[in-house]
Amino acid sequence: MRTIMNHRSIRKYKSDTIDESILNDILLAGTRASTTGNMQVYSIIVTTDQEVKKQLSPCHFNQGMVTQAPVVLTFCADFNRFNKWCLLRKANPGYDNFLSFFTAAIDALLVAQNVCIAAEEKGLGICYLGTTTYTADKIIDILKLPKGVVPVTAVVLGYPEEIPELTDRLPLASIVHKDIYHDYSVGDIDQMYSAKESLPLIQKLLNENGKETLAQIFTDNRYTKKDNVAFSKILLKVLEQQGFMNNEM
Amino acid sequence: MRTIMNHRSIRKYKSDTIDESILNDILLAGTRASTTGNMQVYSIIVTTDQEVKKQLSPCHFNQGMVTQAPVVLTFCADFNRFNKWCLLRKANPGYDNFLSFFTAAIDALLVAQNVCIAAEEKGLGICYLGTTTYTADKIIDILKLPKGVVPVTAVVLGYPEEIPELTDRLPLASIVHKDIYHDYSVGDIDQMYSAKESLPLIQKLLNENGKETLAQIFTDNRYTKKDNVAFSKILLKVLEQQGFMNNEM
Repeated sequence: MRTIMNHRSIRKYKSDTIDESILNDILLAGTRASTTGNMQVYSIIVTTDQEVKKQLSPCHFNQGMVTQAPVVLTFCADFNRFNKWCLLRKANPGYDNFLSFFTAAIDALLVAQNVCIAAEEKGLGICYLGTTTYTADKIIDILKLPKGVVPVTAVVLGYPEEIPELTDRLPLASIVHKDIYHDYSVGDIDQMYSAKESLPLIQKLLNENGKETLAQIFTDNRYTKKDNVAFSKILLKVLEQQGFMNNEM
Repeated sequence: MRTIMNHRSIRKYKSDTIDESILNDILLAGTRASTTGNMQVYSIIVTTDQEVKKQLSPCHFNQGMVTQAPVVLTFCADFNRFNKWCLLRKANPGYDNFLSFFTAAIDALLVAQNVCIAAEEKGLGICYLGTTTYTADKIIDILKLPKGVVPVTAVVLGYPEEIPELTDRLPLASIVHKDIYHDYSVGDIDQMYSAKESLPLIQKLLNENGKETLAQIFTDNRYTKKDNVAFSKILLKVLEQQGFMNNEM
């Protein structure tokens, strides 16, 4: 609980490597996560080779931590192993569709969070790389992911060189709905986002970006429609190419 | 770590309700998960009303635990709140596309796993409901989810009435790849699945299902192509209907 409540994303790492047995314990903790039908349709690529990390770096927009941290974990939806097993056991796998991709993605993501919590409990720091889905096509090439395998998230792992402040969160009441969804009024939104909007660093951020509101920094700079549309196309093409878009009998 | 390693899915619950403050602590632990750009584009529907749980029950194939457990948590990808905020702040949200859905789904799933671990640490039991994506259209109606909101997983929560055995897992080496993906040989697959295939209850299962191999039970009974294709169509239609498939500028 303390580990979960103290989570912060770490973006600066010491050069210390991670002991093999510690890494193993962490990965093993990952495998204890629930998966659909206990099928375990995911894989974890554990990249420590500096050369491969350098190749991955542009996929993660050249964030320094990708080459600085000793380990990059790429969590993949993976039906390749399961399909191979089926075919070797006179069974006809029907997992080349969108539902199966999403099922495998859920597996991979629950495992990822287990791994991160286990890592933090062992004194390591982590940072998720949201860029993974944006450049899935390139990551597939670099990590040589076969058909049936799609990277869904990645995490850098290492000993923290910094301990940043806890980041802000919306009030719990803005996230949680009692029994059914209760849609938000203008007043609700104002109230829920007011603490975030009045953080001390926001004014500086607005000045730097020449923007009037924090929301505009998200829509115009950080997560633009143009990028989202381009990345949507890439991701949908990747699903097709990796054999997950045969949605007819 | 102990909590993670001792996870088992609980399918039988005591009738005891969950203390409000305990439930709050658990949900708060959920909100500490990393989310893309700290946007927190997810919501949690906390259903305790017996009437609403009864309505949800068929969506989860009438598994008894849905009405038996005191709480059902439905984790949703949610851009509705963020979009409303943007529009109220003179910002033009570009989050009506597939990438944005998947980003929000990642948020919701990492939060879900945090919630589950926190719950287990407090002595509660959990079970994921993989049925959530199969019947997302009906869940949307029952929980009154507006445009921009899609249920991605659900969890039942309560005090365990049983403590089942830990379930089997594939050997760690079958899940983990060093540096890049190393595809599986026939020998690899045989070795990786041999422990699973020789579990004592498998022969009973094969006899009951009239099948020759365990893999056939998955492909022919549990997760069939016919179902997967039907559920794929539902899920893709849901994404369209909830406003996440506008993948052009």
